[in-house]
Amino acid sequence: MTHRIAVIPGDGIGKEVMPEGLRALEAAARRFGIDLALEHFDFASCDYYAAHGQMLPDDWFEQLKDADAIFYGAVGWPETVPDHISLWGSLLQFRRRFDQYVNLRPCKLLPGVKSPLADRKPGDIDFYVVRENTEGEYSSVGGKMFEGTDREVVIQETVMTRTGVDRVLKYAFDLAQTRPRRKLTSATKSNGIAITMPWWDERVKAMGVHYPEVSVDQFHIDILTANFVMHPDWFDVVVASNLFGDILSDLGPACTGTIGVAPSANINPDGTFPSLFEPVHGSAPDIAGRGIANPIGQIWSAAMMLEHLGHQDAGQAIVDAFEAVLSEGDPTVLTPDVGGHGTTETLGRAIAARI
Amino acid sequence: MTHRIAVIPGDGIGKEVMPEGLRALEAAARRFGIDLALEHFDFASCDYYAAHGQMLPDDWFEQLKDADAIFYGAVGWPETVPDHISLWGSLLQFRRRFDQYVNLRPCKLLPGVKSPLADRKPGDIDFYVVRENTEGEYSSVGGKMFEGTDREVVIQETVMTRTGVDRVLKYAFDLAQTRPRRKLTSATKSNGIAITMPWWDERVKAMGVHYPEVSVDQFHIDILTANFVMHPDWFDVVVASNLFGDILSDLGPACTGTIGVAPSANINPDGTFPSLFEPVHGSAPDIAGRGIANPIGQIWSAAMMLEHLGHQDAGQAIVDAFEAVLSEGDPTVLTPDVGGHGTTETLGRAIAARI
Ligand SMILES: CC(C)[C@H](C(=O)O)[C@@H](O)C(=O)O
Ligand SMILES: CC(C)[C@H](C(=O)O)[C@@H](O)C(=O)O
Repeated sequence: MTHRIAVIPGDGIGKEVMPEGLRALEAAARRFGIDLALEHFDFASCDYYAAHGQMLPDDWFEQLKDADAIFYGAVGWPETVPDHISLWGSLLQFRRRFDQYVNLRPCKLLPGVKSPLADRKPGDIDFYVVRENTEGEYSSVGGKMFEGTDREVVIQETVMTRTGVDRVLKYAFDLAQTRPRRKLTSATKSNGIAITMPWWDERVKAMGVHYPEVSVDQFHIDILTANFVMHPDWFDVVVASNLFGDILSDLGPACTGTIGVAPSANINPDGTFPSLFEPVHGSAPDIAGRGIANPIGQIWSAAMMLEHLGHQDAGQAIVDAFEAVLSEGDPTVLTPDVGGHGTTETLGRAIAARI
Repeated sequence: MTHRIAVIPGDGIGKEVMPEGLRALEAAARRFGIDLALEHFDFASCDYYAAHGQMLPDDWFEQLKDADAIFYGAVGWPETVPDHISLWGSLLQFRRRFDQYVNLRPCKLLPGVKSPLADRKPGDIDFYVVRENTEGEYSSVGGKMFEGTDREVVIQETVMTRTGVDRVLKYAFDLAQTRPRRKLTSATKSNGIAITMPWWDERVKAMGVHYPEVSVDQFHIDILTANFVMHPDWFDVVVASNLFGDILSDLGPACTGTIGVAPSANINPDGTFPSLFEPVHGSAPDIAGRGIANPIGQIWSAAMMLEHLGHQDAGQAIVDAFEAVLSEGDPTVLTPDVGGHGTTETLGRAIAARI
């Protein structure tokens, strides 16, 4: 059986880390006898926007919908296209139209990667953020009144649905159930955001009834971010709304020092549409073009993609390979962000060789 | 001239730290010859709710509006009253009705307080979060449809006004102007929350024109929380919406290890209504009743209150006093959270004695 993979590098360092992501992916495919058909797309990039006046061709949905997965770099080049246009015209469309309602992001202290937190070592921090990925605070409903005057009012709605919330909670509970600690933390802000958030808390309670073995706690987002810094060892699976999940899944990797290397999976658990795998780092205009971006986020995303496609062993081999290369700590291989003076390519090649 | 101070201890450790806050306040008043008239109120507490079925008496506005300042402990006792009821029925009313549109919170590494971040020492981290405090994500507009069914939809609106945003930006720019580094960071999420947030960015640009000496940068909230952990030394004054400011002003103190001792000022800069001063920590049901809560948040809030009332010297004397007591590190004086085995009262008395 052949897996059809749509490859979309995007902008900035997306274009630089993608070749290394593919190198690792193909190495793992060779070793485990996995048949991949890669198809490359230049849309969903600001270059494409410059040429066509839009981020995607009109038939993008048709072009992508039969892929088994989308392997995605990073989108955004604010110098030429404002972020809300480039992102709402690409990534956020994919998440929504392909109903990738789970955004799954591991936060893990890795060997050889320095954490900004004092006194933490590999094993101490190892949790997942499960983020609702299609609705909530990322709505397209709202607008302005009395525009341009002193009376100007700007309104944006947060929209949550029972369908949307229950299904991501179910995913999070299912995941917590498979983990040794069986612990689920829900992030809300029910004291301040007093309509949507207390209702989310109720949905968590209702879902929890079906998972008697999972222990559940709840924090307001403000103190939860504080606890990510003070007690990252408390967490196992953290479930959150679109915005809160966005915040926590940058903050978590920041606490482990892995924000430059963290992966993410935008999953359509029903399998109706392709899921999308991308590094958490964005297009990073500040370091783009220098060939020094760390490719591990892209490579780790390849591992998550292979696991999603049913190849646990191949995914694990990729993770083992980059953990080994990081542990060795050869400065001629590693990129500057992890203490070396190598390049995107030296690090990518070393990992692929190890696979 | 006599300053009329309304004293509201609230719930939980609010009731325990308030006496020490008052001890410090009165010591500073004596030393600097400041005339205070304290008036005590038992409302805005869950005990009051239990007795009266509401958090506040009907005439609370009349009772408080002529105070020169409100000295506030902490509200909330979720075991008996859900947080969204106790908070919307008290603190959030005060902020709104008294138009305390600035919430000002210092994040500062203190001598003798252990930071969870590696390799940071006093002086490295010293910034303010300026939070919009009356509108934005903390709206009371929204509701449910198809309630209790599978089609359930829950909507809550974020409401921003030009008046509301411009005035807090002005406050933040003015503050940045007085600081040696003259740096202002604005927190938004314009790529995801694409109606309100890009508009906030525009208002920052428009206001910046009047402050050519202030250098301005902008981060999306996700990467900003990451940078609080990775590069807290980057920040000087950070301005944010109600929700983002709430998050950043818990996360900032968490990074400095001071979440248990951070103060905050809810300011009505126009002076039309009383401003309110409170510790950032809440009512902390988990340690309430044991007499071990750290009173420095309350004491530091007293310092901010005195400064607001025009007594810079008295405010500074309080800050100097608790910094000195922390530096000394006497374990018989300090509370457990800062490494001692003293009590709320031993620490409060030591600080008052020093003033
Ligand atoms: C108690 C709660 C409503 C409040 C807020 O979110 O504003 C608190 O977290 C704060 O920061 O003062
Ligand atoms: C680029 C942006 C729209 C996106 C998001 O907020 O979802 C990114 O931050 C992410 O976390 O994938």
